[in-house]
Amino acid sequence: MQDNRGLYRLDELRRVVDPGVIAVVGASETMGSFGQRTLANLSGFAGKVYGVNPKYREVSGRSCVPSLEDLPETPDSIVLCVARQLVEDTVQQAIRIGAGGAIVYASGFSETGLPARVAEQEQLVATAKRGGLRLVGPNCVGLSNLRTGALMNFMPDCGEMVRGRKIGRVAIVSQSGALGYAILQSITRGVSISHYLAAGNAADVDICDMIACMADDPEVGAITCLFEGLQSGQRFLEAARLAAAAGKPLIVYKAGNGEASGKAALSHTGTLVGSVAAYRAAFEECGAIVVDDLEAVIEMASFMTRNGPPRRGPGVGIMATSGGAGVINADKAEKAGLALPELAPQTRAALEQVVPDFGAVANPADLTAEVLKTASTFAHCLDAFVQDPSFSAVIVPLVFAHAGATGARAPVISDVAARSDCAVAAVWMTDWLEGPGSAVLDADERVTLFRSSERCANSIRAWMDWHARRAAATEGVAPRLSPCDAVATARAVIAAARAGGKALGERDSKRILAAYGIAVPREEVAATPEAAAAAATSIGFPVVVKVASTDILHKTEVEGIRLNLRDAEAVRAATEAVLAAAARHRPEARIVGVSVQSMVSPGVELVLGIQSDQQFGPLVVVGLGGVLVELLGDVATALAPTTPERARHMLSSLRGHKLLSGYRREEPRDIEAAVDVICRFSEMAADLGDLIGEADVNPLIVGRKGAVAADALIVLS
Amino acid sequence: MQDNRGLYRLDELRRVVDPGVIAVVGASETMGSFGQRTLANLSGFAGKVYGVNPKYREVSGRSCVPSLEDLPETPDSIVLCVARQLVEDTVQQAIRIGAGGAIVYASGFSETGLPARVAEQEQLVATAKRGGLRLVGPNCVGLSNLRTGALMNFMPDCGEMVRGRKIGRVAIVSQSGALGYAILQSITRGVSISHYLAAGNAADVDICDMIACMADDPEVGAITCLFEGLQSGQRFLEAARLAAAAGKPLIVYKAGNGEASGKAALSHTGTLVGSVAAYRAAFEECGAIVVDDLEAVIEMASFMTRNGPPRRGPGVGIMATSGGAGVINADKAEKAGLALPELAPQTRAALEQVVPDFGAVANPADLTAEVLKTASTFAHCLDAFVQDPSFSAVIVPLVFAHAGATGARAPVISDVAARSDCAVAAVWMTDWLEGPGSAVLDADERVTLFRSSERCANSIRAWMDWHARRAAATEGVAPRLSPCDAVATARAVIAAARAGGKALGERDSKRILAAYGIAVPREEVAATPEAAAAAATSIGFPVVVKVASTDILHKTEVEGIRLNLRDAEAVRAATEAVLAAAARHRPEARIVGVSVQSMVSPGVELVLGIQSDQQFGPLVVVGLGGVLVELLGDVATALAPTTPERARHMLSSLRGHKLLSGYRREEPRDIEAAVDVICRFSEMAADLGDLIGEADVNPLIVGRKGAVAADALIVLS
Repeated sequence: MQDNRGLYRLDELRRVVDPGVIAVVGASETMGSFGQRTLANLSGFAGKVYGVNPKYREVSGRSCVPSLEDLPETPDSIVLCVARQLVEDTVQQAIRIGAGGAIVYASGFSETGLPARVAEQEQLVATAKRGGLRLVGPNCVGLSNLRTGALMNFMPDCGEMVRGRKIGRVAIVSQSGALGYAILQSITRGVSISHYLAAGNAADVDICDMIACMADDPEVGAITCLFEGLQSGQRFLEAARLAAAAGKPLIVYKAGNGEASGKAALSHTGTLVGSVAAYRAAFEECGAIVVDDLEAVIEMASFMTRNGPPRRGPGVGIMATSGGAGVINADKAEKAGLALPELAPQTRAALEQVVPDFGAVANPADLTAEVLKTASTFAHCLDAFVQDPSFSAVIVPLVFAHAGATGARAPVISDVAARSDCAVAAVWMTDWLEGPGSAVLDADERVTLFRSSERCANSIRAWMDWHARRAAATEGVAPRLSPCDAVATARAVIAAARAGGKALGERDSKRILAAYGIAVPREEVAATPEAAAAAATSIGFPVVVKVASTDILHKTEVEGIRLNLRDAEAVRAATEAVLAAAARHRPEARIVGVSVQSMVSPGVELVLGIQSDQQFGPLVVVGLGGVLVELLGDVATALAPTTPERARHMLSSLRGHKLLSGYRREEPRDIEAAVDVICRFSEMAADLGDLIGEADVNPLIVGRKGAVAADALIVLS
Repeated sequence: MQDNRGLYRLDELRRVVDPGVIAVVGASETMGSFGQRTLANLSGFAGKVYGVNPKYREVSGRSCVPSLEDLPETPDSIVLCVARQLVEDTVQQAIRIGAGGAIVYASGFSETGLPARVAEQEQLVATAKRGGLRLVGPNCVGLSNLRTGALMNFMPDCGEMVRGRKIGRVAIVSQSGALGYAILQSITRGVSISHYLAAGNAADVDICDMIACMADDPEVGAITCLFEGLQSGQRFLEAARLAAAAGKPLIVYKAGNGEASGKAALSHTGTLVGSVAAYRAAFEECGAIVVDDLEAVIEMASFMTRNGPPRRGPGVGIMATSGGAGVINADKAEKAGLALPELAPQTRAALEQVVPDFGAVANPADLTAEVLKTASTFAHCLDAFVQDPSFSAVIVPLVFAHAGATGARAPVISDVAARSDCAVAAVWMTDWLEGPGSAVLDADERVTLFRSSERCANSIRAWMDWHARRAAATEGVAPRLSPCDAVATARAVIAAARAGGKALGERDSKRILAAYGIAVPREEVAATPEAAAAAATSIGFPVVVKVASTDILHKTEVEGIRLNLRDAEAVRAATEAVLAAAARHRPEARIVGVSVQSMVSPGVELVLGIQSDQQFGPLVVVGLGGVLVELLGDVATALAPTTPERARHMLSSLRGHKLLSGYRREEPRDIEAAVDVICRFSEMAADLGDLIGEADVNPLIVGRKGAVAADALIVLS
């Protein structure tokens, strides 16, 4: 059920996300009720709050009216703390009074999977859309704007938890209210957040709209997004591109990456969990930063909002006060592919003034506990580190917590970072998770505190990559490579071939590739051994003979291919053998004869494929032929169409990529030719997405110069 | 500098690890001094403590004497809080009065790398050894026995941190005092620990001794070990085997796994950082559990001490109260290779009583927030889960923290777990790291609280594997496979061949393999084309012809191999061609002629190798021939000699292992024949470790029946 309507932007959602007047329907003083909790959470709200409940005139100090129609002014946002059965009526009232949006907590709609309840939800959405009312939920925790105190959610004591906390620039957008809240709770450590928005069933407003809305909000610096599945891949891509265009990193945590968990996701949200590869390709495409652990979400987002683009070289410095801590962080940095350059001479000189002979003036440095004895020597060393011209980021491991150690050092780190353009990451290595000094660093506006060396290194890596990609992206859009008549030619071939069945023969498949400018071998179809020999002579030796039949898709299985035939006699013999074998294996197949093709010179063999994903449309898949793709599943995937830059990245991400770049004593292969074919093939996939179910080129032979599609198969949908 | 002395056991270290009387030399009341901090940390010690310092008669309430000789009784353990220059003299005094051991804090010894300081440390160890005194350190934080309160360390306020905490069964053994302390600080959350032992420079007592000592201590349940490098691999293996024999899991965290960090480790500890593969092989060999993140150490150890062997099937149940949390934990479980079986009918029935229609009665389950409203329904569901016959472990994700949620549920989880034999793991998913309820679960004796879904799944996996391996290990020692005269034959071949240079020819290398019972092709050396043809006729066609010269190690590089020769004429021609090519490529080589060998039938090609590691002696390395080993470095490593069980595990751990077990339409290969060869080859490596520098079999051709070493090379050391 793809719904590719345009995104709601901030202007359309402003009244419900950033309301001036809120009405709580079902306002209550019954402890633990949704109404009571919501009013409690709104106690710090700067705007106006009204209760709606015929039982009260006043509730928790707010004036209360019997029904929405009795309100003295029009509310922007209405929070429905009522049972499912009352939702439809209330939404109709909300429309009548001209409210901007409604938040529906009630469960029991489409997430039950029961047809009657699905219909109930559809009816609700239709009502809201007709009335121009934005609907959030149902089955959702609500929307919370920390800046205004509009905590329109029912989480117990959320208002109390948020009260007095610093407002941040990180927005949380989550399908699951509970998981989003798990991230929000980082504010208890001093971390700062701007919004906590939960989409629940996303009957109307979904996480894509929420991302777009946060992209529009000038006070949001980074958007974190937690979800299991999407209703519309296209809308997600659009929203992600809006975030990118606004210069805001989108940090994505997707649950449901395996088979077993996929099942659970299906039964849980009613939305489709697309294939993992398609999601990865989509995230890559739109520049989202993917994190694989929930713990990484807030750390990554905090690091991104606290640091602009890397200011200097791509290096990272590690300033440890114990050898072991330096080594551990160097391990993780290396694993993340971060460079650890040598210290600059001036850094070295500065450290040598204070580091004793049993320390290490190096990168990673071991300042030793001696240096910690006074705050000034520690500051002196950190100053030297953040000024080192090779470092865009400095990692400061904090090994054990103590008021006199971490407690004393935290403000020093904070001070030094405040006057530097170098990113500063502190790593809290102790199991005393909230020991002395941690709150200072968690709340700091320049330093980011990580509770894992690995997550620290990975975040720095993602930060560098994100900014590098942004810089590269400004170079402009990649032009289309295929000839302008390619689509028309391809459609004509398909129209003519369609009568023969869903699978196009090799010949027609290659004609389509050729229309897109992809090189294919010279080829002639011959009905008899004699005709095949004549064709071979005209094509030029050596040749390949393959059985020609649209009924036979996998020619090797019927012994239907003979390679490297060097004279007419060999071609005659091969043709006889191939036709006999095909007739033996598949007596029912309609066999046209054989296809005689010029033999492609040996090279590295790639496999290209097209898969269609329900969420993201056609995907192009690339692997190295032979055991690597078949045994190890070593493939890379991109949304179609793709660009030369992405195609290059796909090839270099293959585990066996060295085969292309000149393995052992082999000469390097023509990678740019392969890139060109991948792009054209992806353009074909995008152009013909409505017609093609699947397709592959197997193999694409990449030589020292050029790349040729030696065989191809296109299956119509 | 390998030192393979026997391990110190608990009996030898008891006086210093578990002293009755402690003397603190350099006792002081100067705030922050080592002496003052040590006395403060000893304030909860049940035994006697004396100060030694001519400046005081009494210090921090302890009686103080001018020198060790003035003590009224003989101390078991002496803590030296004195400067480096005074250490030697103090140790001599300690010996004179008959102390059991000395702990030396002072830095500036061998870790500086300065020759004079290295000599100073060597002198100190020699003194201690002569006097029968066990020396801990120098450059160490000390030894801490939490059971007796003997906190003989200088960490600030350690005594205060430990006071009143529950004593546990997890011992911390660490090279770095600071990193060990980072783990010890988990006690601030309620986690329980028994010992914190830091080895520092390990001049005398090292982490291997400490592991052995903890293995001997009946009240220790699991040993965690943090280190960068070892002085003796053999002693580590011995210590690890003692722990295994005592039924105690050894959890290892090794820092220094990369190139850059390796450098730092070298400059830091002065001990060798061996190759990563050798360490991995050693850990595998001795059954140690390896964790890759510092955060995982205490969680893994806690889980191991809180749970005996898995009681039921290998399945894991996930009882979530939010769909997203279930999916996330299922993702990680699947990634760790844990099975998530369907719920048993009785479990399903129990859940259906209370879970609403928008929840999911499945594995993972989504009980929904409804079920949380009363503690009894939650307990009802958890009871059903822990009684499900397919589950040996149940994971309970806790998504957000709140007094009424996690705070109320923690004791329920604790209660249910206490009366079940099922392992219970709670996953704390919220960023409120020490929110309500966490302390109850951190301190629980049955439940283990994880702060990462991934670490939880990995710990359960390691727990299952560790116990499965223990069960398998009781089947007894694997017998030696090689013939008893193999060593003598091999040594004779080597003695005769030595004159010809370091590299043995293919013929001699294969004679040694044959002596170990490894199949090699029939072979004759022939000087002329005619003799080669005669040899081939006698061997039987098809044959292979290879150049025979101990000067030519890589025959393909000189075009020195011709395969699959089917008649005498082909052999003559091939011999001429091979001799001519060899003479052209390597005019200086002494060429004996050619080796004519029977052609081995095609099969899957393995590569076997021997490498010698400084710490662990000879290692055997196995990979799949072709791109997998050469391009991807897909190899498995084991210490030599190895067992059939390990060899099987090595093969199945290769990424391309499916090639052996019957890939696509291929028949399965004779894996047991390959296992047999690997074991014999590893026995050869162990027997001839003193003579062989490196060796390989390339390829070992594994057929449908049998495995043949088609080529081999042994290089003497």
